[in-house]
Amino acid sequence: MTDFTKTRAMFDIPEGMVYLNGNSLGPMPKASPAAMTEFLNNEWRTELIKGWNTKGWFMQTNTLGDRIGKLIGAEAGSVVVSDTLSIKVFQAVGAGLSMVPDRRVILSDTGNFPTDLYMVQGLVKLKEDGYELRTVEPETVIDAITDEIAVVTLTEVDYRTGRKHDMKAIIDKAHSVGAVVVWDLAHSAGAIPVDLSGTNVDFAVGCTYKFLNAGPGGPAFIYVAPRLIETVEPVLSGWYGHEAPFAFTTDYRPMPGKIDRMRIGTPSIASFALLEAALDVWDGVDLNDVRTRAVELMDLFISEVESRCAGVTLAGPRNMDERGSHVSFHFEDGYACMQALIERKVIGDFRAPDMMRFGITPLFVGEAEILKAVDTLEDILKTESYKDARFQVRSAVT
Amino acid sequence: MTDFTKTRAMFDIPEGMVYLNGNSLGPMPKASPAAMTEFLNNEWRTELIKGWNTKGWFMQTNTLGDRIGKLIGAEAGSVVVSDTLSIKVFQAVGAGLSMVPDRRVILSDTGNFPTDLYMVQGLVKLKEDGYELRTVEPETVIDAITDEIAVVTLTEVDYRTGRKHDMKAIIDKAHSVGAVVVWDLAHSAGAIPVDLSGTNVDFAVGCTYKFLNAGPGGPAFIYVAPRLIETVEPVLSGWYGHEAPFAFTTDYRPMPGKIDRMRIGTPSIASFALLEAALDVWDGVDLNDVRTRAVELMDLFISEVESRCAGVTLAGPRNMDERGSHVSFHFEDGYACMQALIERKVIGDFRAPDMMRFGITPLFVGEAEILKAVDTLEDILKTESYKDARFQVRSAVT
Repeated sequence: MTDFTKTRAMFDIPEGMVYLNGNSLGPMPKASPAAMTEFLNNEWRTELIKGWNTKGWFMQTNTLGDRIGKLIGAEAGSVVVSDTLSIKVFQAVGAGLSMVPDRRVILSDTGNFPTDLYMVQGLVKLKEDGYELRTVEPETVIDAITDEIAVVTLTEVDYRTGRKHDMKAIIDKAHSVGAVVVWDLAHSAGAIPVDLSGTNVDFAVGCTYKFLNAGPGGPAFIYVAPRLIETVEPVLSGWYGHEAPFAFTTDYRPMPGKIDRMRIGTPSIASFALLEAALDVWDGVDLNDVRTRAVELMDLFISEVESRCAGVTLAGPRNMDERGSHVSFHFEDGYACMQALIERKVIGDFRAPDMMRFGITPLFVGEAEILKAVDTLEDILKTESYKDARFQVRSAVT
Repeated sequence: MTDFTKTRAMFDIPEGMVYLNGNSLGPMPKASPAAMTEFLNNEWRTELIKGWNTKGWFMQTNTLGDRIGKLIGAEAGSVVVSDTLSIKVFQAVGAGLSMVPDRRVILSDTGNFPTDLYMVQGLVKLKEDGYELRTVEPETVIDAITDEIAVVTLTEVDYRTGRKHDMKAIIDKAHSVGAVVVWDLAHSAGAIPVDLSGTNVDFAVGCTYKFLNAGPGGPAFIYVAPRLIETVEPVLSGWYGHEAPFAFTTDYRPMPGKIDRMRIGTPSIASFALLEAALDVWDGVDLNDVRTRAVELMDLFISEVESRCAGVTLAGPRNMDERGSHVSFHFEDGYACMQALIERKVIGDFRAPDMMRFGITPLFVGEAEILKAVDTLEDILKTESYKDARFQVRSAVT
């Protein structure tokens, strides 16, 4: 049984803050500064170039990948860490296309995180030869999967509403027509149980700065099913994925039979130090417990808001089986209302056109935080304090 | 006049070590741990998601890019930082190709760093439509630039021998036949004066973990000439390069008229904290002074080695105008000899088939270090201690 009192104590959250934005940027684990100091003073400073060997930097892409793999039901040796999620989407979709060379259509949905769509648009433009990104509404994806489709690329959990796709149903449909599926787990990894191996996923990608708490811009990861590794095209074929990176030959040869071939360039080792410390928090945590607790907290949050906050309405599905681990509410003056919440140390965020979004992350959020958030929201609405002019001013980055 | 005593004191190099590998991984600036602690404790921990605004994270790609720009003769607003060098090569060459749509040949040389060639090989495979990477010997590049060539992509300084291309001559030739040039400045930025603006460069890319000392896997950078920014294709089109990243529209629109469009995904902010501290070392440093000092030190190093170390012969050009800021020597048992040097705290590295490589970095290397390195090498050769079996064992990462 996961001890959430213990996990809560492992985070350094500012006094008095209710942090409901771990779905966007996780808070700092208390162990992060010491892990970084160790890396700086006892690795980079003292080992210098030897650190690639002596401190294992060169293979941290894989050792960290395996630790993430355990949280998403991946086989050992099927996940590597590095680059950004955008790059990993490009790589996975590009690799998928090369597996279905006679087809030209990539299918996605309007609930996908925009950068996934943007990267595919760039890929389509680059490939020139009649490729097409087809984007449908989330509800119609499964029917849009036909034998014309080469690659289906979707984010499992909608970044706005929390709506969750039925991963297994979509994979089964895709495989039945010979299409490949790429899943973006940005709002899944560390949030909900994922079973990449059991559901027969082809490719998956994700990030570590949300529910995994590796810090702003923490590295991304990519999963390739072991059955595909031997033949998968790396697409972004850098020296770090070469069969013999230090032979410095002029011809690329992907690392045979290993996930290493999906590595590209030299990764940030400092960002790995933070990821390592962040993954330590997960030792002894069962994602089924996390999920059970998140559902309890989301149920509580929704029912309290619905009974006490008139004018605020739930976005996305009410059935928890169809929801990830965040809750959004429509509210006409949602932007200003979120600013008022933030001023009172209840931290969520705003997503256009009118959604106040709250991440429900049981590692460091409990009933007390949920109730304080609702109390604060109720008060802001009752006093109409959100109408204050200063809350209407949009910041550059929102 | 640059004060090299002052810059030397800004690095935390282990006692007794002669570090001649700053061309591969720069040593840690003394200010790095405090900068990182500041980022962790007073940015990520306290600001959390707000840090993207309040601490300027979102635009550090550009503010840091401008600081690097000053070291390579770039116009303000023409450089952004993030991703890896491999990714930036792919992006720049891809962007170059889109500017010359009627041509199919990318020209490079065998002296290019292998990952540059690998990434282009991946790009060629991805584009399918008859594209070709043509690789010639470095000496024949200029003659191989014909009106068949779309993009010339080269590393200015050869990572093995230190041989330096004549950047201006190659650019002028390329432009005269309508080709675009992409320069890799991995061994140039912070090593030798570079004048991107004055020499009319189209694209340049580089890394920050070598002569710029931002730590292992520090972020890469990309330069695009201001005259090209309005029309350049981002190729890897991620949300971070969008005109309105927070509008979350489903269609990609590159940031108009700004280098921001070459940004891709969410960058590692921790790696930016290290880069920021590393760039502080460069305040008050004149790269012409660095170059003058490096030439003096290289001349000294070469003449001492040649007079005292029989069997060890210079690789690459003797004329310093044709050399970057590292010196390599051929030696039949070079691998073992380098291991013996490293054991005695003279740190260089080995490059196949037989080269011992030494970076000459005046920010923290002076005459005393050069002489100690030669003394040690002379002794190792005289005593033949490099023949010890333990020096023959190759490490996994070399």
